[in-house]
Amino acid sequence: MQFPKPITIQEISKLINAEVIGNSNAVATGINELHKVEQGDLVFVDHPKYYNTCLQSNATHIIINNKDVSVPQGKNLLYCENPFEAYLTIVNHFRPFTSQTKAINEDAAIGENTFIMPNVFIGKQVKIGNNCIIHPNVSIMDYTEIGNNVVIQAGTVIGSDAFYYNTKKDRNIWYKKMQSCGNVVIKDFVEIGAGCTIDRGVTASTIISEGTKMDNMVHIGHDTFVGKNCLFAAQVGIAGATVIEDGVTLWGQVGVSKTLTIGANATVLAQSGVPSSLKGGKTYFGYPAEEANTKRRELVWIKRIPELWEKVMKK
Amino acid sequence: MQFPKPITIQEISKLINAEVIGNSNAVATGINELHKVEQGDLVFVDHPKYYNTCLQSNATHIIINNKDVSVPQGKNLLYCENPFEAYLTIVNHFRPFTSQTKAINEDAAIGENTFIMPNVFIGKQVKIGNNCIIHPNVSIMDYTEIGNNVVIQAGTVIGSDAFYYNTKKDRNIWYKKMQSCGNVVIKDFVEIGAGCTIDRGVTASTIISEGTKMDNMVHIGHDTFVGKNCLFAAQVGIAGATVIEDGVTLWGQVGVSKTLTIGANATVLAQSGVPSSLKGGKTYFGYPAEEANTKRRELVWIKRIPELWEKVMKK
Amino acid sequence: MQFPKPITIQEISKLINAEVIGNSNAVATGINELHKVEQGDLVFVDHPKYYNTCLQSNATHIIINNKDVSVPQGKNLLYCENPFEAYLTIVNHFRPFTSQTKAINEDAAIGENTFIMPNVFIGKQVKIGNNCIIHPNVSIMDYTEIGNNVVIQAGTVIGSDAFYYNTKKDRNIWYKKMQSCGNVVIKDFVEIGAGCTIDRGVTASTIISEGTKMDNMVHIGHDTFVGKNCLFAAQVGIAGATVIEDGVTLWGQVGVSKTLTIGANATVLAQSGVPSSLKGGKTYFGYPAEEANTKRRELVWIKRIPELWEKVMKK
Repeated sequence: MQFPKPITIQEISKLINAEVIGNSNAVATGINELHKVEQGDLVFVDHPKYYNTCLQSNATHIIINNKDVSVPQGKNLLYCENPFEAYLTIVNHFRPFTSQTKAINEDAAIGENTFIMPNVFIGKQVKIGNNCIIHPNVSIMDYTEIGNNVVIQAGTVIGSDAFYYNTKKDRNIWYKKMQSCGNVVIKDFVEIGAGCTIDRGVTASTIISEGTKMDNMVHIGHDTFVGKNCLFAAQVGIAGATVIEDGVTLWGQVGVSKTLTIGANATVLAQSGVPSSLKGGKTYFGYPAEEANTKRRELVWIKRIPELWEKVMKK
Repeated sequence: MQFPKPITIQEISKLINAEVIGNSNAVATGINELHKVEQGDLVFVDHPKYYNTCLQSNATHIIINNKDVSVPQGKNLLYCENPFEAYLTIVNHFRPFTSQTKAINEDAAIGENTFIMPNVFIGKQVKIGNNCIIHPNVSIMDYTEIGNNVVIQAGTVIGSDAFYYNTKKDRNIWYKKMQSCGNVVIKDFVEIGAGCTIDRGVTASTIISEGTKMDNMVHIGHDTFVGKNCLFAAQVGIAGATVIEDGVTLWGQVGVSKTLTIGANATVLAQSGVPSSLKGGKTYFGYPAEEANTKRRELVWIKRIPELWEKVMKK
Repeated sequence: MQFPKPITIQEISKLINAEVIGNSNAVATGINELHKVEQGDLVFVDHPKYYNTCLQSNATHIIINNKDVSVPQGKNLLYCENPFEAYLTIVNHFRPFTSQTKAINEDAAIGENTFIMPNVFIGKQVKIGNNCIIHPNVSIMDYTEIGNNVVIQAGTVIGSDAFYYNTKKDRNIWYKKMQSCGNVVIKDFVEIGAGCTIDRGVTASTIISEGTKMDNMVHIGHDTFVGKNCLFAAQVGIAGATVIEDGVTLWGQVGVSKTLTIGANATVLAQSGVPSSLKGGKTYFGYPAEEANTKRRELVWIKRIPELWEKVMKK
């Protein structure tokens, strides 16, 4: 998330009650998660395991619960006891949840020749391009950006919160929500089926690129990037922060785990499960998904076990 | 389902045109299915196979199509030809389906600082606590009870009817709906993703306990009990009358069959299928789900069949 | 799709800028896809591989991009460079997409004692019979026909567009939508769960026959035929143009591929995948689905591989 305008570290430190170690007059341009952070951004870290990665990341300012770390030149620390709570405070300050009473927010920018059907919800600062059809009972949540010639079938949800929690099993409620402040970006000529759900990025964007088509009940997790001209059949589920390169085909009920990459023009056959990255240009099958030919041969081998048993018994 | 106030067996017998065998002045406090029935309740049974279980259950009053059974002391029979139709008559009398023209029923009790977004439906006698967010296009059906600090993402349905039918294959329409009169109870700090569906209990409650979090497109069947601090990833499906104990994690697309128990702190890996009960504290995988290590070794053994074949051929 | 009234080939040829080879005064009664085409209909073909099948089909008029074909007697060609675009032109002419501002179209025909709950969308020329309940936030798209005594739970979408594309990988946007102009037909005593999606036929009808019951989040693809008294558990997905005969039971999360047939009274166990036709009256399991007993034995054999390995090592 970018701030509406750059803000000094001093102001941030007051907001989250932190001590500045470095240059108080330096400005932050936004806040992002570690894997999405850019120069000028704030990042937060509360576990020693990730101190170094955060300090060495693109982040310019690090909200941290430890002062005894070596800070790279030009970077600033914001020291506080609970960086996770500091993150929530910043998000709630710059992107507070606000309800709305009208189904379509008045600040929504909707292009020419675009049809918004009845019972559609459109949140704040949503942009929708030209020649789109948004079918009934669709929910388009805050900050979503939709290009031109996009069709979204009925009942679909664009921009629901990330399923992303801070976990501590020694408290009464184990999971505390990492408040989402990112959005969903849908490019030109994308079509999305009925009853789909696309989560927004935690701090950045979930992106669906040009020409990709999804059938009904497809789920796309937060911060996932989907390339151009992909084809997802019904009931496909893709977890968070995954990269699906251009031209990938996923057949019905395929499940894809988080933070992996499926290479360009790969095809994954129906009901397969993808627990780790797959190279492009090949066809995969099964759980865990392997090259389809390998897997098919395996099925044949399984059928030969009784014959093998008999051979062994006879010897 | 509890009746609004206790009602005599005589009154019930008139309603369903049944003969009372026992004490007509005894009162019934409600009607429930066999596995949910409590003292004071009515239960119905039409198949000899279940006569005894029903007569020995907690039920005080048994609607039955046979008089020649031995009735435990203090219990009463309501004899009629079609106990299933009698059940429907009672449900339709005490909890008739009623439509409503307003999207939010006027008798709904909604707490402080709770946001109801546009296009939400709220049925009759719904209770929602404080500090909740009900996102757009959510449907919260009759009698649902929601605690405090609950978030429900867009497009989700809470309290749809149980998928539960009386089956007779010798009639034109095989499946006759067992009318639901139960509800859904969602406790504090629960979060439910977008596009989920949680069915209400047939006569009792489907319960989601404190702190449990569900991702998008999760399905929970009727009368299922979900414990505290569970985590369900996207597209998980849980059938009816299942018990998921505290701290259970189900990863994406896991399917869980009906009337079984998954023990506390168990983890079931993505796409696994659970046809029978699982002990707590372990990690499971595959269909049928087994301990993950066992299953992983099995996958390795399958890959060794060709080598084994070769060894056998050589001997 | 049938035209509102028969139309001469000459008029069609003007609309799509085609050359008539045959009788210009002949009339077309409708346009349909190859596998749904009837006498009097137009069909289109642009790939030489399908020329013959189209020419030999029931179609009376063939929109084609080649004149050098032998035309069966009594049939007419409409020659043009791009038959696919001609198809789109015809569909957009006779069934143009039109938005609507009211949630319930005024021309909808709704029967007696049928309840339409709040936030329901009903498109144009929809017919709904008597004694139905349409729960909140349901979307019933244009031309849908619903019989008597039908229940549709909340959030479900009936009549979303077919997931059906013209594919050419040498253009910027690979997939171009084959505009749907068919509908969904739901017969008497059907019940459909919450969060389901049923796509309309591309040019013909997706049909759900009498007495069939579906649990939540079931997906039915375009042009699929579902017989009487079928039972589909939650999260079942059925692809396009499939035939499910009477009395078929599909348990939770079963996936069924396109254009196949599942025979009457077959049962497919949970999470199974059906890539090809299955004979009726049997129980199936696994992916690819096989007779359940065969598959169960296979699972036992897999568990015996280590024992087999040991035996071989000892010899």
